[in-house]
Parts: sequence; C-alpha cells; structure tokens
Amino acid sequence: MKYISIIGASGSIGTQTLEVLRKEKEIQLVGVSVHSNLERLRAIILEFHPEVVCITDEDRKEEAQDLMRSLHYSGEVCFGMEGLIHVSTLPKIDLVVTSLVGMVGLRPTVEAIKAGKDIALANKETLVAAGELVMALARKHQVQILPVDSEHSAIFQSLQGSQPHEVAKILLTASGGPFRGKDTAFLQGVTRAMALKHPNWVMGAKITIDSATLMNKGLEFIEARWLFDVPYENIDILVHPQSIVHSMVEFCDHSIIAQLGSPDMTLPIQYALNYPHRHPAVAKPLNLLAVGQLTFEAPDRQTFRGLDLAELAGKRGGLQCAVMNSANEEAVALFLKEKIGFLDIYDVVEEAMERFRDLGDITLEKVFAADEAVRAHIRRKYKEV
Amino acid sequence: MKYISIIGASGSIGTQTLEVLRKEKEIQLVGVSVHSNLERLRAIILEFHPEVVCITDEDRKEEAQDLMRSLHYSGEVCFGMEGLIHVSTLPKIDLVVTSLVGMVGLRPTVEAIKAGKDIALANKETLVAAGELVMALARKHQVQILPVDSEHSAIFQSLQGSQPHEVAKILLTASGGPFRGKDTAFLQGVTRAMALKHPNWVMGAKITIDSATLMNKGLEFIEARWLFDVPYENIDILVHPQSIVHSMVEFCDHSIIAQLGSPDMTLPIQYALNYPHRHPAVAKPLNLLAVGQLTFEAPDRQTFRGLDLAELAGKRGGLQCAVMNSANEEAVALFLKEKIGFLDIYDVVEEAMERFRDLGDITLEKVFAADEAVRAHIRRKYKEV
Repeated sequence: MKYISIIGASGSIGTQTLEVLRKEKEIQLVGVSVHSNLERLRAIILEFHPEVVCITDEDRKEEAQDLMRSLHYSGEVCFGMEGLIHVSTLPKIDLVVTSLVGMVGLRPTVEAIKAGKDIALANKETLVAAGELVMALARKHQVQILPVDSEHSAIFQSLQGSQPHEVAKILLTASGGPFRGKDTAFLQGVTRAMALKHPNWVMGAKITIDSATLMNKGLEFIEARWLFDVPYENIDILVHPQSIVHSMVEFCDHSIIAQLGSPDMTLPIQYALNYPHRHPAVAKPLNLLAVGQLTFEAPDRQTFRGLDLAELAGKRGGLQCAVMNSANEEAVALFLKEKIGFLDIYDVVEEAMERFRDLGDITLEKVFAADEAVRAHIRRKYKEV
Repeated sequence: MKYISIIGASGSIGTQTLEVLRKEKEIQLVGVSVHSNLERLRAIILEFHPEVVCITDEDRKEEAQDLMRSLHYSGEVCFGMEGLIHVSTLPKIDLVVTSLVGMVGLRPTVEAIKAGKDIALANKETLVAAGELVMALARKHQVQILPVDSEHSAIFQSLQGSQPHEVAKILLTASGGPFRGKDTAFLQGVTRAMALKHPNWVMGAKITIDSATLMNKGLEFIEARWLFDVPYENIDILVHPQSIVHSMVEFCDHSIIAQLGSPDMTLPIQYALNYPHRHPAVAKPLNLLAVGQLTFEAPDRQTFRGLDLAELAGKRGGLQCAVMNSANEEAVALFLKEKIGFLDIYDVVEEAMERFRDLGDITLEKVFAADEAVRAHIRRKYKEV
C-alpha cells in the first residue's frame, strides 16, 4: 500500500488524481487540501475518507467546521499555510501530489521534501521560482520529484533506461494554444472568454491563460531545465498543434525517443503515482489512424512574447524566474478580472523583470521576499490594494 | 575493447557497419565474410586488417587466393558455409553482425549463439524461418539478440526501462513502399527498375523488392513476434510514409513510446554495437521542423497481399514461416531476373504455403529440409535448374 496526500485536491489535476485513485486500490489517500471548495471537500471525504483535511482559505474556517460536524468527520482538520504544510508532511505518507496552482505550492513542497516525501509535481511554479534550490534539496533528502505535467512526464518516460550524459536535447512540444497563427493586432482584441478556450486540454483558468500567452511553455522550459538538469540551450520548443506527442528527448546518437498519448492528464498522473511501474490504463487509448497526421512548426516568438520572456529570465538566472513567475500570476489574475488586456500580460511581466532585476543570489527566503515585493508593486499599480 | 565479426560485410548493412566502426575506436573488426565481392574485401582488408576473412562463394576460391597473395595478407582465409561458421564463432569475438541476406544466415547465427556470441541481427530471415528456435537457443546460451532492423531497433529502444508484462501492443510502422496508393491493375505493370526505387531507404535489391510487395513488413511482423515475445494479435502495422517514426510500443497504461530519427541505418547499427550505451552520432540529426508532418494510415491489405500471407504463415506456425520465407526468396530472385511479374511473387509464395503445409513440428533440421524442398519445387517449376 502507498499512502499519499493531495494538496489542491479540488482543482483540475486534483480531480483527475482522484479519478486515478478510484482504479488504484493499492494507493490510499491520507491527507487532502482544498483552497475554499467545501462542496468538493465534502464529496472527497464521503468517498475517500482521508484522515486529515486542510482548508487553506481561512475565511472559510467556520463554514468548514460546520461541514465537518454535519459529516461527523472524525479526522483532523487544519487551516491555512500551516495546515497545508501539515498535510504535506504527515508521518504516514510516502508521496505528496502538489496539484495546487502558483507560487503558493513552494513552501509545502519544500517542507514535504525535507520530511522525505516523494513529490508528484503538478505545481510547475515551484520549479520556475526556485528550481535550483528545490532540486538540490530533493537530492539531499533523496526524494524523487516525479513530473505530472504532460510534457515533463513525456520527457521523463522518454529518458527511462538512458544515462544523463547521453541526452543531447529536450524537444518540448507546445500546442500553440487557442491563438496559434494569429497576429498581434488580433491578440489586442482577445477577451477573457476567448482565452479560456483551449483547443486540446481542459484545464484550470490560470494554466489556460498561460497556454494562450505561451507563458505556460516558458514556465515549462524553465521547469524542464531543473527537473532534468539540462542547460537551456539544449531545450528546443516545437509547436505541435495536435497535442499527441507530449515531448521528446534527442540523444547523442541522434535517436529521438518520444512519448505519445491521448491528451488526458490521468496518464501522467498515474505514471507518477506508480513509477517505475505502469498499471492498466485509466486514460483512453490513442488511435493514431484516427489522428492521421502530426505536424510540427516553429513557435511565433514575435507575437507570443511569453517564450522569450521566460528564456530571458532563465538565462539571467538568480531571482529573475521567481520575479517573472510572480508577475505573471498577478498579470493573469488581472486579465481574468478584465482589468488588463491580453497583451498587457507580457508588459506587466516585462516591467517587473526590469524593475526587480538585481536582487542578488537565490535563497528560499529571497524567493518569498521577491514574490511579495513583485505582487505588492503590481497590485499597487493596478489599484488592487 | 569489443571484438566483432561481420558476416555479409559487402552488402548495404555491412558497408554501413564499417562506416560506424570508423567512428567507434573501441570496437575491433576481427572476422569478416563476403559472398563474392573481392574488390570490397580488398578494401576492408586494407582499412580494417581483419584476422580472418571468409569468401562464401566457393567459385571465387582461386581468385580470392590470388588477391590474398597480392595483398601479402597474413590472416586466415576460409570459404563457404564452413568458413562462415568459423568467422561467426572465433574465440576472440564478443559479437557477430549478421548482415547477410536470406535464410543462409540461419546456420552461422545458430552456431554463433551456441558459441556464446551476442548477435547484432540484421538478417531478419533467420527469425522468420526459425524465430522460436533461435530465441530459445539465445536464452539457453544467455546471449543477446540485438535488432538492427530500424523498426525492431526502434521497438527495442522504446522498451528500455520497461517490464515485459507492461507491453500492450507493438506498433510496427511501414513506409508503404514505392507503390503505396496504387491498385492491382497498376502493380501488374510494375517492372524490376520501378520496384527497385524505394522512396526513403537505400537498401539491397532483395529487401527493396520486399518493401515494394510489403512482404518485408510481413517478415518484420514475424520477426517482432519472436524478438519481443509478443503475440501476433498484439502487433499492429501502420503505414507511415515519411519513415521518421521507426516504430512504437503501446504500454498497458495507453502511453506510447516511439523512436524517431533520420532514415539512416547507421543509427540502429551503432545502437546495437554499443548497447546498452549510446555514443556520439554517426547518423545525421533529424530536423522535425523541416519534416513538418508525420502521417499514419492503415495498410492496403487487399492490394499488397504480402502482409496477409505473412500473417497467415505466422498464425499457422510450425514450418509455415520458413516455407513462406524460402518461397519469397526464390520469387524475388525470379522477379529480379525478370522471369515472373510483380504480382506473381504473391502467387509463388501462396502456392508454396499450400503445397508445403503439413510438415509437422519445427526443428532446425526440418527448417533446412523445408527450405531445400521449397526452393527445389519453385526452381523446377520455373525451369531454373
């Protein structure tokens, strides 16, 4: 039996992780967190009987306590960041699925690693903001960071049985998002509703916007650099609109190994939970004859500036990726509130990267400080405080 | 240092193996055979200084001895099948590259296995005729059968790091050959010259004709069954005209791992020679952006009957595959001599399969006997004796 916690259980990845658990009878859900979705938490408690639950939104404390009473819930209930860390470090668990969105995942991930828990990582912002530190910590505590992002799972699967020195390149595929082929003039008129429609994947709002701006691929570019310890110059981005080839690895002998599958997140989730084994599918099979063709093209970096911004942040190093990531989280939130336009997201990120450029060496505390400073600056500017 | 012999060194795979050896300074060519190409043998001796050479065509014995004298060759010279077995079992060698074409490869491969040599197998007919026996022998003598066929190398590479019980399907890709999309009426008029032009691969004459009839894919279907111990019903054939995805494996979780590369045989040769390691490339890199698209379609089994004939032989089992293979070798030879038409190849194979249907259980001696009987029958029929 494997014991796990899921943090961010009510989101898209959390929900699909629960779908996997319904088939995986040898994995037991011990701890769970949601931000504020008590309805979902109620359903999880009734179906999975977790021993510990956390509600991170402290404004929901009373409501949550009422719910627990009505359910006669006999487990432990905790709240806020403290609760999130508690759920992520329970002595009984072997692994934490970090399926929450944003920089908020960094602290519980770090504490889980320190407590010796393996991480099924769906929270890419953690590696973007502090990949160097998180991976060093994982090595120190000998825990596995198992990627759940479909691209990184594909790379991880393609690397099986190989040696690190044999890797020549990572070929990170991108769907191109809903606005592939459009120009800047078009993007100026993009609305919230338009940007929330992804052609291939059903995902949460934040990642869907990131996919439309291609910031998502920029974040994944940085994530891949740290997860697989490959220098940025050896990571290529290819637009592959069908989202069937989830990514590839090119080896030193010019052989390319690729992972393909239906665009279904249960596949990488199930792989991470059972690694190094594969279990009978939760995901639907891929019918390549029905797909018929797979195409590849270069990304339009002029129009979708997210890629170059991420690359710039990555190459500058230090705290630049954390700054970029926090600025992007704020910019996406502003766009989702319809306070800024689609292309303004790039400007907000770029301005923050220039303003918070020289912050010295990276440490965890500096990452948190930079995060706060960047958010405060942007909120002040857009009168969100 | 790894010591090897190459049998069939003057052919397409043999020549490309030598190309790989020019880069691989830790692999030494000890033994070599050619059928009758003395000019090529001369060049090999001058460049690689093998310790033992074999000329299998005994009609060239005197000519060969003259050549050796003129070269002041101080190594050992041997002839015929006996010589071929000698070169394949030299005490000093670790591995034999079986790059000759046809059933003639079976006997030296068997003897090499019995002598404990690993096999880099490019001679697919060996596994078609006697796969069950050869693989059992390899297990008994604990030698590795390393596939050199690009498709089987792709499958082998895609299987790295996995467990046999996790494999759901093998997806064997086929270019479709030079006559993909053509109908039976067209095939009736196909000439030797037309059939010898393959769209993607430069290969020897026999395999090029087999590619045009799709018998090659039928042979590979049987080869895959034995190499990877996967039942026939779990091997699908997909036509992929670009020959970039060299084959794929679908696992039980519906994840597909594929191997891609330029259509360049040095890649699978180099992989087999260095397995389980990868060395810097001899092959050119693949530029997926330049390729642009990869397509997949179902094979036209009505027109290209080679696939169904091979499947039928495989499912009948016993000596049927050996019969089919020998009949195909004879039929291709007749077609290359312009004694029969393109579609007659299928008829010759089918007639032989029906005529030599009930030959009992498979043993090595029965495989050789069936081979002789089938060839004698066909040669008699077409007045080749």
